[in-house]
Amino acid sequence: MKAIDKLSGHVIICGFGRNGQQAALTLKIHNVPFVILEKNEERMGRISADHPTLIFLLGDATEDEVLKRAGIENARALITALPEDADNVFIVLSARAMNNTIQIISRASDYSSILKLKKAGANNVIMPDRIGGTHMATLVSKPDVVEFIDFLSGEEGEPIHIESVAYEHLPDEVKDKSLKDVMNWQKTGVNCIGIKNAEGKFLINPPDEIVIEKGMRVIVLGTKRQIDEMKGNLA
Amino acid sequence: MKAIDKLSGHVIICGFGRNGQQAALTLKIHNVPFVILEKNEERMGRISADHPTLIFLLGDATEDEVLKRAGIENARALITALPEDADNVFIVLSARAMNNTIQIISRASDYSSILKLKKAGANNVIMPDRIGGTHMATLVSKPDVVEFIDFLSGEEGEPIHIESVAYEHLPDEVKDKSLKDVMNWQKTGVNCIGIKNAEGKFLINPPDEIVIEKGMRVIVLGTKRQIDEMKGNLA
Repeated sequence: MKAIDKLSGHVIICGFGRNGQQAALTLKIHNVPFVILEKNEERMGRISADHPTLIFLLGDATEDEVLKRAGIENARALITALPEDADNVFIVLSARAMNNTIQIISRASDYSSILKLKKAGANNVIMPDRIGGTHMATLVSKPDVVEFIDFLSGEEGEPIHIESVAYEHLPDEVKDKSLKDVMNWQKTGVNCIGIKNAEGKFLINPPDEIVIEKGMRVIVLGTKRQIDEMKGNLA
Repeated sequence: MKAIDKLSGHVIICGFGRNGQQAALTLKIHNVPFVILEKNEERMGRISADHPTLIFLLGDATEDEVLKRAGIENARALITALPEDADNVFIVLSARAMNNTIQIISRASDYSSILKLKKAGANNVIMPDRIGGTHMATLVSKPDVVEFIDFLSGEEGEPIHIESVAYEHLPDEVKDKSLKDVMNWQKTGVNCIGIKNAEGKFLINPPDEIVIEKGMRVIVLGTKRQIDEMKGNLA
């Protein structure tokens, strides 16, 4: 309980089935703090024994009181990954009523639920079966590309990240300079694959001459060390 | 029936639930021919009415005779996307026995089935819930990156592809030249994000001086038109 009271800017994961477990694992890798809500006492007992460092809360996420105990008012995001779309719609509605600015991401099992979840207040709706189907087909039609992307996520060697670097995080030396200057700075080996401008528009494979100004973001591909170097953190 | 007899180098999709439907949609976009096996007559009737151009075969994919009728001996790949892992294991075993070189991709619902499916002969095993969970968490921890990748798949504007271009598909002018020469050729605007060498190893963000030789592949990011230009197809 104590640990939860202190949390702020955390993520709430509703449901610790296969979907929720994988979401938790990914957040852990990215060092994002989170609380897990699970109503099945036996499942929770088993998993919290396996993962003593995770913060669990026993309770039904469709109850307002449980979301409050999970710190919905101070949370940064809520992920609802229950198997029944009706439960997810209910949680999205409750969460949105309690926190107007929180990012809400919901799982959907049926196509027909996507619109309902968005109307209820979800910012993003994910259909695992759809993503999985695309992945299976891409393994047939573009096997090298899938292998390359799996390699990026780093089974062997140093993992490679795609990261969006904000103007504010660039070293002063290269602020308001051309992309070429930004990328040549310290020869970090990072590759720029896109730009997001101040209006939120993306430009893929931008030209070298483009000037990186306030409000822009540079999308880069590189190891964590290379990206830190680019930001001047290791200088 | 006639259309199926003529097929060779096609893909067989077992099960036309949400997973199989999305796999079919993706193969269609990539222009890969496929046959769908579905045992539920009502579902098949409904969907084949909606999609008159798809090739359907009514039957249970766990029966050898049905796989034979779908042309397993001449097929290039089989995707089995049934909800029960036991059925998928059975189909993988049968398919592998009938075609030793076919690429087999299976869905798994439980972690514990992954090893069984691989032992049975699957080349790749996909867990939709796991991929979906990663995606949900990444929307929280790296929203710009997810937005960027969604943008790549092209909701707006010309879609951007990641493609693996084989040495053989490069124009003669740039074969056995440095990566810099390959990428500067015709100034197509394509961005090289990796190399796959003859031993199948990847190198991310390769240096400009690396020479592109036989057996290598260049992984690039660009629009279809840019990539075609790079291969010299539009010259």
